[in-house]
Amino acid sequence: MTHLFLEALYCRNLSRPPVWLMRQAGRYLPEYRALREKHSFLDMCHQPELIADVTLMPIKRFGMDAAILFSDILLIGEAMDRGLHFEENIGPVFDKPINSPADIDQLPSIDRVNTLGFVSKGIECLKSKLSAPLIGFCGAPFTVASYLIEGKSSRDLKKTKQWLLTDPVSFHRLLKIIADWSVDYLNMQVRAGVDAIQIFDSWANLLAHAQFQEFSLYYLKYILQRVPNIPIILFCRGSSTFAPQMASLEPAGISLDWNCDITQMRSVVPSHIALQGNLDPDILEAPIHVIRHEVNKILTGMRGDRGFIFNLGHGIFPTISIDAVKTLVECVKNSRRNE
Amino acid sequence: MTHLFLEALYCRNLSRPPVWLMRQAGRYLPEYRALREKHSFLDMCHQPELIADVTLMPIKRFGMDAAILFSDILLIGEAMDRGLHFEENIGPVFDKPINSPADIDQLPSIDRVNTLGFVSKGIECLKSKLSAPLIGFCGAPFTVASYLIEGKSSRDLKKTKQWLLTDPVSFHRLLKIIADWSVDYLNMQVRAGVDAIQIFDSWANLLAHAQFQEFSLYYLKYILQRVPNIPIILFCRGSSTFAPQMASLEPAGISLDWNCDITQMRSVVPSHIALQGNLDPDILEAPIHVIRHEVNKILTGMRGDRGFIFNLGHGIFPTISIDAVKTLVECVKNSRRNE
Repeated sequence: MTHLFLEALYCRNLSRPPVWLMRQAGRYLPEYRALREKHSFLDMCHQPELIADVTLMPIKRFGMDAAILFSDILLIGEAMDRGLHFEENIGPVFDKPINSPADIDQLPSIDRVNTLGFVSKGIECLKSKLSAPLIGFCGAPFTVASYLIEGKSSRDLKKTKQWLLTDPVSFHRLLKIIADWSVDYLNMQVRAGVDAIQIFDSWANLLAHAQFQEFSLYYLKYILQRVPNIPIILFCRGSSTFAPQMASLEPAGISLDWNCDITQMRSVVPSHIALQGNLDPDILEAPIHVIRHEVNKILTGMRGDRGFIFNLGHGIFPTISIDAVKTLVECVKNSRRNE
Repeated sequence: MTHLFLEALYCRNLSRPPVWLMRQAGRYLPEYRALREKHSFLDMCHQPELIADVTLMPIKRFGMDAAILFSDILLIGEAMDRGLHFEENIGPVFDKPINSPADIDQLPSIDRVNTLGFVSKGIECLKSKLSAPLIGFCGAPFTVASYLIEGKSSRDLKKTKQWLLTDPVSFHRLLKIIADWSVDYLNMQVRAGVDAIQIFDSWANLLAHAQFQEFSLYYLKYILQRVPNIPIILFCRGSSTFAPQMASLEPAGISLDWNCDITQMRSVVPSHIALQGNLDPDILEAPIHVIRHEVNKILTGMRGDRGFIFNLGHGIFPTISIDAVKTLVECVKNSRRNE
């Protein structure tokens, strides 16, 4: 059976474009919030049955063309024993942030990636229940390193940026460790049965051009080379600027943030690399006729493109209504075939 | 007398590049903080002698090649009677944010731009004391509107973006009013004697591509057409993506944020438009040898460019040391002439 999502990711889709949404298995879903009342977020990430249940929620409700594993990019930091927890209205917090090169040297051995075995089990659990392709994922080493160093979300990544400017050698050591963990973690996901992978570099937009090359792109390439035989999509906030550099790595796809015109970006990114995106997520809070208009604008611009996957330019907000998502998915599903 | 800054802004500079820094008259200066102990921020913006004194501070200390008027982009909102004040650790706050189309209709008549006469007096005060060119400025209508609507700084401009998506007609009415005020305000600054103008669209990076065109660029063009005979530089956060659109307005110069490689950007922005930027402001908190290295990298990349003005990619932070700024300015001043 062919799947639109994979066809588009291989840039050979002759049907309508596929659609999925970043964070589609999340807080905007009433069934997610109901489950969340009974379990902590981390519990939900840890239990294979719950991983599977949550991953399936948006597929059952909206029939997206791909499922993305319910998980979190920071579980790798938890496996590294940095004391991850989630606080209401704050988000992820590491009790033991990485404060010094000595902290880096004390990170546990890469064998501990195996403690993430529950993710494999979640994937296995899903494979029998899911007909759509399943996307596995991890955070990019730069973004994961930033969280580990800052200890929580940060507007400006002050500590991280001073570290990389002041002591790039130890910063590279940290990135390399995270990259090695990510390679093992992603290959574990591949063995368990994911059909594609997306790597999230959510904070790359705080980097200058040369910093992106040195501290982000280098490790994305490192991972791409070591996780073969599976199509990989690269996402970063900042991709409207960085997409040409990302394209030089020849990933299967690039997921664009919402600043650029995706149609114009196609003239820069070669047609054998899929382009995913890039609806401004705020548009999902606008009236239904606006959502329809804006979704159709992107569909029209990308009509005929065999490597186009409809998505948002960023993760969906918890405040988005079900009707908004339904409208978006319907628009894409009702759109014309490529030829 | 020719001035490097103006020569570069007219893209005919044959000497070393000029240098100034966004927010160069600000909290990182001990003499500014000393003055600030005796006066509120708004007092300092209101009193012509203090405007002049603060504007001159960085020129006296570092010898920058241009002075930028000490003022604030939100004074226009104060003149509109929306109750502007500044709160410690919060920043600007409007007591009466714009909440509805009715609020827009009740904005005072444009004659009230004259209440900003103290800015003119500050400029006149400066002209006798200043040998460097003086840059006047205002906020771009989109950014000013966002502040007026949000009431204070905001990470995501939720209210603003919902407004522009839901009721673009009244949002355009607000932008048009701010643009008209800005035209009068800038022409007042020109009459008082500024030598160039910079328009700051600090929050444009939250806009999608088509939104930037419709809600930001359109009004920048409107202002450019109505403030003639003076070179105008356009700055926005997001310019690494939006610079080609900005260049289509044919401003005298474009000031780039730090995400892009300014040398690469020159191949997109024609050589008769000056390029200003774009050192990552975090670099000024790095060790001196790193600052020197990074400044020189930009200087080397732009060597021979007759329209290059050295600046940061964003305003300078209050935490920056005097030595860091001194190093930056020295590096630029010691750099090789164009030929």
